[in-house]
Amino acid sequence: MKSYAIGVDLGGTFIKTALVRIHGEIVGKVEIDSERDRGPEGVIENILRAIRLVMKQNKTTEDEICAIGIGSPGPLDTRKGIVCNAVNLPGWINVPLRDRIEKVFGIPANLENDANAAAYGEYWKGAGQNSSIMLAYTLGTGVGGGIIINGELIRGASDCAGELGHVTIVPDGRLCGCGNQGCLEAYASATSLVRIVELNIKQGRAPLLQKWSREGKKLTAKLIYEAYQQGDVFAKEMLEQLGYYLGVGVSTAVMALNPDVVVIGGGMMNAGAVIIEPVRREVKRRVFPEHFENLKIIPAELGNDAGVIGSVGLALQMTQNQKSQRL
Amino acid sequence: MKSYAIGVDLGGTFIKTALVRIHGEIVGKVEIDSERDRGPEGVIENILRAIRLVMKQNKTTEDEICAIGIGSPGPLDTRKGIVCNAVNLPGWINVPLRDRIEKVFGIPANLENDANAAAYGEYWKGAGQNSSIMLAYTLGTGVGGGIIINGELIRGASDCAGELGHVTIVPDGRLCGCGNQGCLEAYASATSLVRIVELNIKQGRAPLLQKWSREGKKLTAKLIYEAYQQGDVFAKEMLEQLGYYLGVGVSTAVMALNPDVVVIGGGMMNAGAVIIEPVRREVKRRVFPEHFENLKIIPAELGNDAGVIGSVGLALQMTQNQKSQRL
Repeated sequence: MKSYAIGVDLGGTFIKTALVRIHGEIVGKVEIDSERDRGPEGVIENILRAIRLVMKQNKTTEDEICAIGIGSPGPLDTRKGIVCNAVNLPGWINVPLRDRIEKVFGIPANLENDANAAAYGEYWKGAGQNSSIMLAYTLGTGVGGGIIINGELIRGASDCAGELGHVTIVPDGRLCGCGNQGCLEAYASATSLVRIVELNIKQGRAPLLQKWSREGKKLTAKLIYEAYQQGDVFAKEMLEQLGYYLGVGVSTAVMALNPDVVVIGGGMMNAGAVIIEPVRREVKRRVFPEHFENLKIIPAELGNDAGVIGSVGLALQMTQNQKSQRL
Repeated sequence: MKSYAIGVDLGGTFIKTALVRIHGEIVGKVEIDSERDRGPEGVIENILRAIRLVMKQNKTTEDEICAIGIGSPGPLDTRKGIVCNAVNLPGWINVPLRDRIEKVFGIPANLENDANAAAYGEYWKGAGQNSSIMLAYTLGTGVGGGIIINGELIRGASDCAGELGHVTIVPDGRLCGCGNQGCLEAYASATSLVRIVELNIKQGRAPLLQKWSREGKKLTAKLIYEAYQQGDVFAKEMLEQLGYYLGVGVSTAVMALNPDVVVIGGGMMNAGAVIIEPVRREVKRRVFPEHFENLKIIPAELGNDAGVIGSVGLALQMTQNQKSQRL
C-alpha cells in the first residue's frame, strides 16, 4: 500500500523535503543546503540526497511512495516538467527536473511553481480549506501569489498565472526588481520595506531605527517589527503603509476574481494585525459590498510547510487525473 | 427537434432579443424599448413581448426552443436566477427574472451578468474562440469585463467576478461612478474620456473640439474620434492616453491570470488602432516576456450581438450540465 508521498521545495538557499501521508500530514522533514554554485547537476544531486534522507530517517522505502511533488522557482514548463530559467539558481536553463527525479526513483513526479505550490498547500490543508475561489499572497523577499478556483490551481496559458506580486498598483511608481514600475512587490515585500525605511533613516525621520542601525543591528523587516512592538510610531506607520498598498493590490484581484478567501502568508506576516487590518480596511473601501460581504482575509496557517504540502497535493492530483484518464 | 434558443439582452434603454441556432448563428433579432420607468412588471412584460415577437417574425414556436438565455445588469444571484439590484433599472430589487420567464414559456432559462454574457459570446463565437484563458473588456459608458478559463465563465464566490473595469489603476486617482478612487473605468470609459476632454476645453487646450462644441455639436466619444480622424493632435493624445491606462489595467489582469487572448470591444473600439496599439505597448512593457510571448490582444468581433449570443451559449451549457447530472 503506497500511503506516502514526498514533497520537495527547491530554493536558492535550501532544499526542503518532507515525507507526507497522502492525507496531507507531514511525517518528517529534511532541509539541506542547495549549494547552488555547483550548478544544476550539483543541486539535483542534493535533491536526490535529501529525498533519500527523508525516506531513510522515517524508515520508508520507495515502494511506499506514490508520488513526488516538486516546487521550484520559475519560469517553468509544468506540462513538460522543465525548469526554463530559475532566477536564483545559476545555470538552470531548460533543466528537465521532473523526469530526472522520476527516472531515479521510478515514482511519478510533478513539477510546479513554488508560489503556486504554497498556495495549493494552504488550500488543501491550511487557511483556504473549502474555499471556492482562493487567492494566496506570500510576503517575503518578494511577493508571491497563487489562485485556486474550485480546487484547481490556475496555471495560465504559459504557466505564469498567479503573479499577484507584479500587478501594477502605481502606474509610474517605484521600480520593481522585475524591471517594471509600480508593482505590488515594490511596496509590500520585506525588501521594499527595508529600502523605504533606509531612505527615511537618511532623511532623519526614523530616530529609533537609526539608533539601532548605528549600534550595528542589521536593518531587516524583523528589526522594523521589533521597533513597532516597542511602540515606535514611525515603524508602525511603515507597516501600516505596507498594509495599505497590499490592500490596493488585493482589491484589484478581488474585483477580477471575487474570491471567498484571501490567504496572506510569508515571513512578513509575523507582524500580523498591523499589516492585515489596513489590508481589510482598504479592500472594504475599494470593492463592491457584494465582493466584501462573504470575503475572509486571513493569515496563512502552514508557514514554511505550505510548499512541500502543496507540492504533494498537486502531485497526488496529477496521479489521480492520470488514473481517471486511463479508466 | 429543438434546434433554436433565444438570447435576451436586458439594458436600461433597450431590450434586445435574438433567435439563435444552437450552433450560435443568429436567425433574427428584435429590439424594443425597455420602458424602465414602468418598473419591473412593465419591463418584464416587454421582455415577454420581445421574445414572442422574435419567434413570430422568424416563424418558430416554443416547441422548437430548447433554452432562453438572459443577460442582465447586476448584481445578480445567478444560481437562483434573481436580479438583486440593477442600477439602471428603477425598482428592480430581488426580481426572480429567470423563473418568471421560464414559467411563462415552459422553457429552461438561465440568467447571467450582461458583461459576462458578452464575454462568453466572444469566447464561443467571436474573437476568443479556442482560447484557454480569455479576458474580455467592453469599453462603453462604463468598462465591463469577463473571464473565461478552459471554457468556463468565472462567476466568482458571490456572482461578481470579472469586474475588470473596477480594478484600481491609480490608488488616489480619479473618482469612479462606483464610489471608489482610481478605477480603470474612470480612465478608459467613453464617459471618462468626455469628462477629461471637457476639462481640457475649459482650460483652452482643445481648440478644434472647443470650436465644434460652440457650433452646437454634442461632445461625445464619437466626436472626439472624428477630431482625431481629421488630424487633431489633442484628440489623438486623449485616445492614446485612454489606451495607456487601459494597458495598465490589462497588464494587471495578465499578471494574475496569464491569458492567451484579451478581447477588447464596445463602442469606443471604433477608434481601433489608436487605442489598441498603446494597450499592446503598455502590456508588453509591464508583463514578463513569458506572459506576452503568446498573448493576443485583439478587437471583439461580435459587436452588439455578443450579449445575446453569449447568453444563449451559457443557457445551452446550463441545460447540458443539467442533462449530464441526470445521467
